[in-house]
Amino acid sequence: MARKKRYVLGMDLGGTKILAAVVDPKGRIQGEAKAKTRPQEGPQAVIERMAATARQAVREAGVKWEAVLGMGVGAPGPLNPETGIVHHTPNLPGWNEIPLASHLSKALHIPVLLENDVNLGTLGEHALGAGQGTRDMVGIFVGTGVGGGLILDGRLRSGYRHAAAEVGHMVVLAGGPVCGCGRQGCLEALASRTAIEREIRAGLAAGRESLISGLSKGGEPLTSGMLAEAFRRGDPLVTEVVSRAQWYLGLLTASIVNLIDPEMVVLGGGMVEALGEEFVSPIGQTARQYFIQQADADRVQIVAARLGDHAGVLGAAVLVWQRFEKHKGREGMGR
Amino acid sequence: MARKKRYVLGMDLGGTKILAAVVDPKGRIQGEAKAKTRPQEGPQAVIERMAATARQAVREAGVKWEAVLGMGVGAPGPLNPETGIVHHTPNLPGWNEIPLASHLSKALHIPVLLENDVNLGTLGEHALGAGQGTRDMVGIFVGTGVGGGLILDGRLRSGYRHAAAEVGHMVVLAGGPVCGCGRQGCLEALASRTAIEREIRAGLAAGRESLISGLSKGGEPLTSGMLAEAFRRGDPLVTEVVSRAQWYLGLLTASIVNLIDPEMVVLGGGMVEALGEEFVSPIGQTARQYFIQQADADRVQIVAARLGDHAGVLGAAVLVWQRFEKHKGREGMGR
Repeated sequence: MARKKRYVLGMDLGGTKILAAVVDPKGRIQGEAKAKTRPQEGPQAVIERMAATARQAVREAGVKWEAVLGMGVGAPGPLNPETGIVHHTPNLPGWNEIPLASHLSKALHIPVLLENDVNLGTLGEHALGAGQGTRDMVGIFVGTGVGGGLILDGRLRSGYRHAAAEVGHMVVLAGGPVCGCGRQGCLEALASRTAIEREIRAGLAAGRESLISGLSKGGEPLTSGMLAEAFRRGDPLVTEVVSRAQWYLGLLTASIVNLIDPEMVVLGGGMVEALGEEFVSPIGQTARQYFIQQADADRVQIVAARLGDHAGVLGAAVLVWQRFEKHKGREGMGR
Repeated sequence: MARKKRYVLGMDLGGTKILAAVVDPKGRIQGEAKAKTRPQEGPQAVIERMAATARQAVREAGVKWEAVLGMGVGAPGPLNPETGIVHHTPNLPGWNEIPLASHLSKALHIPVLLENDVNLGTLGEHALGAGQGTRDMVGIFVGTGVGGGLILDGRLRSGYRHAAAEVGHMVVLAGGPVCGCGRQGCLEALASRTAIEREIRAGLAAGRESLISGLSKGGEPLTSGMLAEAFRRGDPLVTEVVSRAQWYLGLLTASIVNLIDPEMVVLGGGMVEALGEEFVSPIGQTARQYFIQQADADRVQIVAARLGDHAGVLGAAVLVWQRFEKHKGREGMGR
């Protein structure tokens, strides 16, 4: 008798959009749906939209609802994966101690697991992307902020307080520039796209010429795409600022390697997607110079993420598969 | 029939002295021995002295050689715990790819396990000292250098290349002072006793007055004891320099917590032994300010080590007990 087909839902809740995907046991996306988050409408409206987006993804996949085993959801933290509660999140105003997993589970009648969004991006890259087959892997995602994830012994490390892998708030330059978190010298204050934009704007304000003036007309926010184009074309201001961010990212990578000694570091996020190896390779070079154990420095791989925007939903799906494997011995991807 | 008593040997190989202890299954030291390392005599002489010191500790303990199950040895790295080979070590000139574990095993006719000395200090504190009962713990030991150890899920994390927990070479001040490792801005270049001494000497050379001039006559090296005395008596130069080192140690502790999110951070080494809570408490305060997750910051304990000089030999003993438990199900301490 043929085994019944089974699927899981993966969802990524961001400040601007909601992504949902139906994923099969091999990690293949069978159908997707997308919606705007519209956080200003408040938690309840957003949660209803999340449920609707999940249903739409299942329709797109053409599978029966009964074949969906459960859903994994990535959300910005702080949150508690054990209780499924989002404590609060700066990107989603009004979210305060929201039992997101249980709301969604009631709406959809399937088990729902909650986890930090960047942790799930890392889990996705580990199970299905750049980190496949590694035992210990660190993910570093550079966007408007800098987030991370840790895979140790093949499993996501959430941490004692579910607060692990906040790589953006490791201090790289004591007493350095003020960070979005209010402290000083965090990596995020030195190497996020926000930090890069701040430096470039300061350069422009000081009268430096740059291709950026033409790319970002009327001072609209700089995208990774704009930065990548100016960087590729050798714009001096952008090259200086981005190279400096890469240097700090290299030092951070080395600090993490000197502490954890993982098999692989995966770099992702908008700048990596826009520039690929051009962005990652100098980071790897700086990092290896700063590895304290030099003899076998090349054994630690430092590579670009592969799953782009899909890392989060795929990681969310992997989380569910792993849970089902653990509890029921069903087949599924990852370990 | 009464169960036969069993013991293990723990040994700590340092640049100046060799310590050996016979430890019972409850972690109690039954006998000890000590010898000068005299590294200038070369590896073979040192290894023979290690074996002799082990035998002497067993005699001191008054136990029969047959009751000794095995020996754990902590040595400065880099080394490979799997092969028992010391690759090379700056403190022991001439040590180059020395199969230390197998030499000692042949000399003593017992199994010998090798591990990084600071890792074993951390393991000792975890099983028998400040970290008892914690699942995840980080050890930070401040001496002439700064070393560390990681306990995750109750086990020592050695790392993919056996290079984990090099906390002294995490970068805290990018582009900062040159470190003993040749790089810049490592914690060790900012907060080790060596760094503290360098700053104090610079202050003295610039004409600052300090109690240190009277304590260290003729420019002899500053000990933790001298620094502690001057600090306790409120010497302005020493207080400035030590407080600054504590600040950097606080930032490092926060960076580690923001990455790993452990249950406890244990601080040890000469300065901690000399000053206790006076040294640790400001570090904890700075660290907690820099925790990115503030709501439950107090759940992470930041405490002084308890085992002093014995952490290493006890950790070495724990390593052997853990291995025996794993392979033979014998009783023993730790998990």
